[in-house]
Amino acid sequence: MQPPPAQPGMPEDEVDTPALILDLDAFEANLDAMAGYLAPTGAKLRAHAKTHKSPVVALQQIRRGAVGQCVQKVAEAECLAWGGVPDILVSNEVVSPRKLARLAALSRISNVALCADDADAVALAEQAAEAAGIRLSVLVEIDVGAGRCGVTPGPEAVVLARRIAGSPHLRFGGLQAYHGSAQHIRSPEGRAKAIGAAIDQTRRTVEQLRQQGLECGIVGGAGTGTFPLEAASGVFNEVQAGSYAFMDADYAANEAAPPFRHALFVLAQVMSVPKQGLAVVDAGHKALPTDSGFAKPWQRPGLTYAGASDEHGNLRVEGGAAPKLGEKLRLVPGHCDPTIDRFDWFVGVRGGRVECLWPIAARGAMH
Amino acid sequence: MQPPPAQPGMPEDEVDTPALILDLDAFEANLDAMAGYLAPTGAKLRAHAKTHKSPVVALQQIRRGAVGQCVQKVAEAECLAWGGVPDILVSNEVVSPRKLARLAALSRISNVALCADDADAVALAEQAAEAAGIRLSVLVEIDVGAGRCGVTPGPEAVVLARRIAGSPHLRFGGLQAYHGSAQHIRSPEGRAKAIGAAIDQTRRTVEQLRQQGLECGIVGGAGTGTFPLEAASGVFNEVQAGSYAFMDADYAANEAAPPFRHALFVLAQVMSVPKQGLAVVDAGHKALPTDSGFAKPWQRPGLTYAGASDEHGNLRVEGGAAPKLGEKLRLVPGHCDPTIDRFDWFVGVRGGRVECLWPIAARGAMH
Repeated sequence: MQPPPAQPGMPEDEVDTPALILDLDAFEANLDAMAGYLAPTGAKLRAHAKTHKSPVVALQQIRRGAVGQCVQKVAEAECLAWGGVPDILVSNEVVSPRKLARLAALSRISNVALCADDADAVALAEQAAEAAGIRLSVLVEIDVGAGRCGVTPGPEAVVLARRIAGSPHLRFGGLQAYHGSAQHIRSPEGRAKAIGAAIDQTRRTVEQLRQQGLECGIVGGAGTGTFPLEAASGVFNEVQAGSYAFMDADYAANEAAPPFRHALFVLAQVMSVPKQGLAVVDAGHKALPTDSGFAKPWQRPGLTYAGASDEHGNLRVEGGAAPKLGEKLRLVPGHCDPTIDRFDWFVGVRGGRVECLWPIAARGAMH
Repeated sequence: MQPPPAQPGMPEDEVDTPALILDLDAFEANLDAMAGYLAPTGAKLRAHAKTHKSPVVALQQIRRGAVGQCVQKVAEAECLAWGGVPDILVSNEVVSPRKLARLAALSRISNVALCADDADAVALAEQAAEAAGIRLSVLVEIDVGAGRCGVTPGPEAVVLARRIAGSPHLRFGGLQAYHGSAQHIRSPEGRAKAIGAAIDQTRRTVEQLRQQGLECGIVGGAGTGTFPLEAASGVFNEVQAGSYAFMDADYAANEAAPPFRHALFVLAQVMSVPKQGLAVVDAGHKALPTDSGFAKPWQRPGLTYAGASDEHGNLRVEGGAAPKLGEKLRLVPGHCDPTIDRFDWFVGVRGGRVECLWPIAARGAMH
């Protein structure tokens, strides 16, 4: 683990770079806003910890009404459970016997559940639960358009749910129905169309399960891009947004989206101004992964982050104040999830000063 | 730091996924091959530790004749020096007074040097050296085509070198002349043209410095894509390749390149086979950064890594043996540097068994 790049009380401009800055006013406003959006709907928040990787953040979400957390990895579930999070869904398939044994062990201190899309995977979960002497909750993942994991909605899901419900060591936990690619469709009409189809498929599957006497404790899915649709559907009772707390350049490009604020920045320092029109900062793609595009300079018109190498970011300067050697500036990450996972500390800032340091305890927790 | 995903003696197939596998036979063959390439030239290896992030790897390179290591960050230099590496060049600009103080402090236990491309940065290095009571070696970085940091070759470099040499607290260390983008030009003719120009600019600058009585202790640059050219130039005396030890899919796409072997893999597990033609593995872009393209399945014809989300990799199956649920397979990273930086452990494998675990001690060392 890297040492913290700041101390509480320090002005932001003294923070060592590159550093992950959390604007606490914006962050708390985002948490409050999500609670406000969901209050009148039938859905609760189960925030996705693959984004924030931190029990500190998780507990603040739960304090505002979240029923628990999602994770993608057993190692993330461990980190949250050890940090006091009482209810955790692995919104993903787990097929390694050793990982399943760890998850079953975890169920002694937290409510845990996982997803399955294959009868062989269900059998592995069953063996782990039996060996641990516990009953493990398993959701059926259905593919509602993402084209990734999941069985086909409808009868195929019912067959798998019956397999789970029929086991003395498992409990049928409900449906996982996340449409990942729909989150980033720019137009609200496009998102509504994709999620409308996902809702229809999910509703139909819930009804077919009910006809078999199988009730869905959880019907979960949705992300920051589409959660108002799922939350209003009457079908989904949990939404799994994660990025809303931080926002990034990619989600900010969605049109007519709930106005969450940019709360997450990488603070970078200008380390070279080699010629007119170019400034080089000390945050490249190791600090700012480029899977969803480049970072954007924050409130600096005329600057464009135009190229990344491992540890260098090239800023094109086309007007505005030219960055000076040694100057520090905020960059909005292209994608918050992998960016947070690059750092060991959130540097919480309020009113220009460092207020807190929070460890990103599940950084690198991929197992 | 995450716990190790394996134990010595374990078959590779039992390693927890995703894991960073180092094929030790291929790795050692690559280290030997580089020593063999450079022996008849006038150039020595100063391997780039931004790639491997590990004193264990650094010391093996030095044992085979490398004069030392390059890093991009002071925190990487610290990690290497604390791990016993005796000679370290920060092949990059450092303009933070606190970072410069740390580097100056480090010079008590290792030979350290850094680069500069600005008189103001030289003044900052001078202050740090004076405060620490040491003499710091500073190289002038020249831009030989990369379009990133560096002064213009020729008179501008001479002026900066004189400023360094004139300081009682600094020592003029030579020239840093790295052409990054040339490393990935596919055709050997294209690489030769780009590096030919870089060599000419560097030679001219070395001569102009000599006319002023300034000798270049180090004339450094080059990477895995172009080092035979710089090494044979008679101008460069140090080459800074890093990827050669591991190789990746991007460097493998260069034509007529020295035949280094693929030694680095991410071992991933098939966690879902939801439909014909698709298998999903547990290594997405958090395990396999996509800045230089997707990973490639290793020795599995018919499989293509066709899409990455945070923790999922979608494999398209178009022939060959279809991956089975739970199966583990090796993937060649698109880009070795950021991939290694995602993990805490190298899992060294030989003859199908885990032989060693090496900590990636400078993982996340961005400061």
